[in-house]
Amino acid sequence: MIERRTIPAGGGTGLRLRCGERLRVIDPAGGQSGDLVAFSADGRERLSNGRTFDYCGKIYLSTGDVLWSDRSTPMLTVEADDVGRHDFLYGACTPEMYRIQYGIEAGHANCHDNLSAALRECGIAPEPLPTPFNLFMCVDVAADGRLVFRPPQSRAGDALVLRAEMDLVIAVSARPAATCNGGAPTRPLAIEILGAATGDAA
Amino acid sequence: MIERRTIPAGGGTGLRLRCGERLRVIDPAGGQSGDLVAFSADGRERLSNGRTFDYCGKIYLSTGDVLWSDRSTPMLTVEADDVGRHDFLYGACTPEMYRIQYGIEAGHANCHDNLSAALRECGIAPEPLPTPFNLFMCVDVAADGRLVFRPPQSRAGDALVLRAEMDLVIAVSARPAATCNGGAPTRPLAIEILGAATGDAA
Repeated sequence: MIERRTIPAGGGTGLRLRCGERLRVIDPAGGQSGDLVAFSADGRERLSNGRTFDYCGKIYLSTGDVLWSDRSTPMLTVEADDVGRHDFLYGACTPEMYRIQYGIEAGHANCHDNLSAALRECGIAPEPLPTPFNLFMCVDVAADGRLVFRPPQSRAGDALVLRAEMDLVIAVSARPAATCNGGAPTRPLAIEILGAATGDAA
Repeated sequence: MIERRTIPAGGGTGLRLRCGERLRVIDPAGGQSGDLVAFSADGRERLSNGRTFDYCGKIYLSTGDVLWSDRSTPMLTVEADDVGRHDFLYGACTPEMYRIQYGIEAGHANCHDNLSAALRECGIAPEPLPTPFNLFMCVDVAADGRLVFRPPQSRAGDALVLRAEMDLVIAVSARPAATCNGGAPTRPLAIEILGAATGDAA
């Protein structure tokens, strides 16, 4: 392991991941969701749910699936997944969302600002922020298209491992919205940066 | 009616729509899908499927639903809809998509380039292009998340009417991919720019 960090409840962090290195995102307490965005190290390519849906032919991604960039380059491969259910439809929560949906005027922690700040610290201009890969967030799509939130299926210690397919800047936020966490208050996430597996490109 | 245009098969067009004005997109022959993107007239806000999914609580939009910007501003309201089924998941087709999915190396008409060129002609920097509202495109989401293409449900002459909730630049492309059109070759679309309804803001 190269590094381990805790992301405080409602907070975010940014990191660089070289091609072949792996990022493990852990839900230490269980039932917590997070947002992850990725940019190419040069800032020119960004994570794209639309391209990923197209190439994978599905909206729920898990072990073996690839997350693609908006320029049709593989960015990350899901190498392991204890949970098996994540969302890739919802935009990051924003101050405007808390105002419109919850009547909170200002000051609420939000993934948009967490991710944007973390990306800026890594030298990436984040705007417009792409739709995050919403780790552990569980949203069903009904036959008529309605979206139904369910609590994250992650249990304490469950993790997801993503392998970088190119040099990347990544930001992760521990979602502060109780809606995304089955009504529970937001809790920390943890990340581990792992070296390339033996035989992989470093 | 302020103006009527035909969008040739596989082509695109750009236009300005003032707050309150309406855009009617017609499928003259039936079974043809199209891509639509919208930017605020100043280029600072762009159409956002993630925000729209969040505020509407569903992925299939039709009459009465609002399409939102990435800064949480209403952009367009669906005022009328003969078809009732559109897609808002897939990114615009790109040259890379034709290479990866169909082995076509270069030169295929594609919505990404059509929309980008039309936006540039209207003074908008399109990159990164947001996920379009894919008019008449019919994609089912299976319970396991798989995406299943079905032919567009539009019959000859069917149309969708969108009312601008702010001053906008809009681009529309007639999708060139047979996959999106039930296997049929691409056909033209038509658009009509309509004035504000009596009583609406002009």
